[in-house]
Amino acid sequence: MKRKIDVNCDLGESYGEFKVGKDEKIMPHITSANIACGFHAGDPTTIAHTINIAKKHGVAVGAHPSYPDIMGFGRREMQLTSEEAKNYMIYQVSALQGFAKAINLSVQHVKPHGAFYNMAIKDEKLSEAIVEAIKALDTDLIIFAPPNSALAETAARNGLRVAYEFFADRAYNPDGSLVSRKQANAIIQEPKKVVERVVKVAKDGTVVAANGEVVDIGEVHTICVHGDTPTAVELAETIKRGLEGAGIEVKPVSSFI
Amino acid sequence: MKRKIDVNCDLGESYGEFKVGKDEKIMPHITSANIACGFHAGDPTTIAHTINIAKKHGVAVGAHPSYPDIMGFGRREMQLTSEEAKNYMIYQVSALQGFAKAINLSVQHVKPHGAFYNMAIKDEKLSEAIVEAIKALDTDLIIFAPPNSALAETAARNGLRVAYEFFADRAYNPDGSLVSRKQANAIIQEPKKVVERVVKVAKDGTVVAANGEVVDIGEVHTICVHGDTPTAVELAETIKRGLEGAGIEVKPVSSFI
Amino acid sequence: MKRKIDVNCDLGESYGEFKVGKDEKIMPHITSANIACGFHAGDPTTIAHTINIAKKHGVAVGAHPSYPDIMGFGRREMQLTSEEAKNYMIYQVSALQGFAKAINLSVQHVKPHGAFYNMAIKDEKLSEAIVEAIKALDTDLIIFAPPNSALAETAARNGLRVAYEFFADRAYNPDGSLVSRKQANAIIQEPKKVVERVVKVAKDGTVVAANGEVVDIGEVHTICVHGDTPTAVELAETIKRGLEGAGIEVKPVSSFI
Amino acid sequence: MKRKIDVNCDLGESYGEFKVGKDEKIMPHITSANIACGFHAGDPTTIAHTINIAKKHGVAVGAHPSYPDIMGFGRREMQLTSEEAKNYMIYQVSALQGFAKAINLSVQHVKPHGAFYNMAIKDEKLSEAIVEAIKALDTDLIIFAPPNSALAETAARNGLRVAYEFFADRAYNPDGSLVSRKQANAIIQEPKKVVERVVKVAKDGTVVAANGEVVDIGEVHTICVHGDTPTAVELAETIKRGLEGAGIEVKPVSSFI
Repeated sequence: MKRKIDVNCDLGESYGEFKVGKDEKIMPHITSANIACGFHAGDPTTIAHTINIAKKHGVAVGAHPSYPDIMGFGRREMQLTSEEAKNYMIYQVSALQGFAKAINLSVQHVKPHGAFYNMAIKDEKLSEAIVEAIKALDTDLIIFAPPNSALAETAARNGLRVAYEFFADRAYNPDGSLVSRKQANAIIQEPKKVVERVVKVAKDGTVVAANGEVVDIGEVHTICVHGDTPTAVELAETIKRGLEGAGIEVKPVSSFI
Repeated sequence: MKRKIDVNCDLGESYGEFKVGKDEKIMPHITSANIACGFHAGDPTTIAHTINIAKKHGVAVGAHPSYPDIMGFGRREMQLTSEEAKNYMIYQVSALQGFAKAINLSVQHVKPHGAFYNMAIKDEKLSEAIVEAIKALDTDLIIFAPPNSALAETAARNGLRVAYEFFADRAYNPDGSLVSRKQANAIIQEPKKVVERVVKVAKDGTVVAANGEVVDIGEVHTICVHGDTPTAVELAETIKRGLEGAGIEVKPVSSFI
Repeated sequence: MKRKIDVNCDLGESYGEFKVGKDEKIMPHITSANIACGFHAGDPTTIAHTINIAKKHGVAVGAHPSYPDIMGFGRREMQLTSEEAKNYMIYQVSALQGFAKAINLSVQHVKPHGAFYNMAIKDEKLSEAIVEAIKALDTDLIIFAPPNSALAETAARNGLRVAYEFFADRAYNPDGSLVSRKQANAIIQEPKKVVERVVKVAKDGTVVAANGEVVDIGEVHTICVHGDTPTAVELAETIKRGLEGAGIEVKPVSSFI
Repeated sequence: MKRKIDVNCDLGESYGEFKVGKDEKIMPHITSANIACGFHAGDPTTIAHTINIAKKHGVAVGAHPSYPDIMGFGRREMQLTSEEAKNYMIYQVSALQGFAKAINLSVQHVKPHGAFYNMAIKDEKLSEAIVEAIKALDTDLIIFAPPNSALAETAARNGLRVAYEFFADRAYNPDGSLVSRKQANAIIQEPKKVVERVVKVAKDGTVVAANGEVVDIGEVHTICVHGDTPTAVELAETIKRGLEGAGIEVKPVSSFI
């Protein structure tokens, strides 16, 4: 069977007149869009625009819910109760579902944003709050999470589908975690190298860690590309072409998971 | 046939630790709850609590969307584009739909809040934005609006169901509009008088205007009681008992419209 | 010399139409008001009202800056950079200084709110950010902090005046820290007992800890009373009367520190 | 005597991670910066950065207060009470004064932003609220306003200094008002033409209106250049050089008004 993979990107991260990202240009090169839902970015009009662009390009849409922190772009850790986390999830995911319904789409997946994601992948209690929200809304929603994370495990244990995520341009530690952004070698800049890595992980589930060791991180379903770097469009295009050139089919994750 | 009427109230208007209203105590005496959706009040956890209380009491739930103005409680006029108004509607209504779905309810109606309501009932363009949002989400949603308002007419012209609303404790002008709150006689304080009025309007669609004239305002489907006055609970209870005592059935509007 | 002490309370914690607290009624019984500055409560109009009431009663005013979190009332931990913490301080304290200046008052003190306070008293880096902000604005500003806290020590080391704070209705551990609110005995309910405690701490700097041990917590300059409990007004009144009855002068802290 | 004029620009209009404008590059070509104060843009850290850049370039700083509307960038009309308008002014202007004080600057002027400006220049009651706020804070603050506007007249009648403002790239009507942005010819694109206009208005207080008529708009003290167009930096540079080339001194308005 031909191998398949999804390419996802955070989009719709403008806020009113504050315009960021190159949504129009990146959309042709990805298969799943994580759309900001209003708590860190993504006012309602931005959501409407972004989801329309996604539809035009046949890109599957997902919710990208955040802690409530416009001023900090959802990147700051906050201590929420489980009840707050669950309800913030329901609010944001269902708001996006409304925009999807309005143009006859349905929401494919959920990927928490920024600090919400970073805390959830390590915190079982927070992961449970996320999973409960999804179960309350739609058990067909796929959760994006790193392999072996608390979020992935909690979702799987609750019978939800999980798409294991690989970060195209981030260096990995030998234990399968990401090299901290505070370290100089955290980001892989060279497009050629990035493509080699995504092809390798898509084919055999391994990555060359920062120390040179080949690490088995298991099956990967979706490749995350960052939309907020100057070279984002070119990189997304290169990755998609590289994957296809290697005989890997690039499709929305819901079609093969 | 026995006459039927609905009694509605704005609820869920707390915001985080800012607790307002007597939701628990009013709920037994109404049949439709207009639930704040986060833009003037009603953070996600408040929504979750309020909708649970409504379910417990068999009260139908509606969205109470607002202009984005926590600081002004949605009471200040804002000039939005049609696109903004439509998208703010979709965002808030569908967020509430998610909370409803999570407990196996569906949203019965939509009643814009504060300045959004006051501007829409006079403004056809704004009414069209509201109607478009509802049509995009669920054509079964009922719009609450005063008889003869731009909002009522626009909704009806677009094939949506409209519940004509009567304000229990507000004085009316001979033309069927409300006496401005700036005037001394704007609010009817005496419970007995309020009950007489709601029974009268429920029975024959007329009200005694501030100048003593009997005014025909046509069929009325729902009576609005205010939840933010000191006597709100007693008034709601008195109104419901008064209506039932007069042989009028008090039920959620979706059951008879 | 006659002993002197200050009594402080968090006030001005309404937000627009969300009205909380009994500012008018508590003000006669305190000597320093910690006024919310807009980030957890205290919209500009609330600030203006509160500072006017304080002036009327001769109560000294202080800034009560918070993390930016209206939805969570500033009670949730957030991870800010030092630069963010410093700038959020400058913004909020100087906003209050403007309102003070407008009525010929000056701001006496600064007491961070909620999670900002709770994190700062244990975190030297965060305390340094707070201290830097105060030094940049007005070195006469007094910082309210618990004795032996990181905040108190950082402020003192930088040459700022510190008012050591005692919590009237909170139980203490033998090490001088507060009993966690999660424990049943965290709050001292009985007014008579509360008064005994504040008189004792004002006279000899000791408190009877939850385990019965007499703990020396050193000199205390200001007693914190909570304004958000049902009995807040009575408690504040009782405390002030109790202190005065014991021969202790109750005055704004800037008059004796 | 040599003619003098000020060149102003709205800056500091980023918000957290939402970065807009080219503050660093425009600053060398202007003499007064209108700095966003947090209600439409300009979180505290952005304010701190922007005011530092202004200081480095010897640019005078002014407050650019707005209606509270991050989502709409302060461009939407809102109906505020006089009390709200006055208090929102005090809050924002004094917050900026704190950042200025922290680096030994003082705030030179106030220019309301967006819808606040557009409504104030036509509305005497709103202008009075603005003027009251300024009088309460610092009577040396200069108000930026169009000649003959309600804001200019109210400020002058109250003894405040007013800097009459001319919009470099906007077409004027024969009555001295601006051609609406909804009209095709509202914006003057050609740099050479823009420079001719600012030199002409600086020298003799006249402008060629959209219909070709030469209109006397009286003395002008400050030229507004927009910072949010793709050619903003070049245009600012060209304007300053053009004015200086015509023998007009370009200086902060407080130095000659």
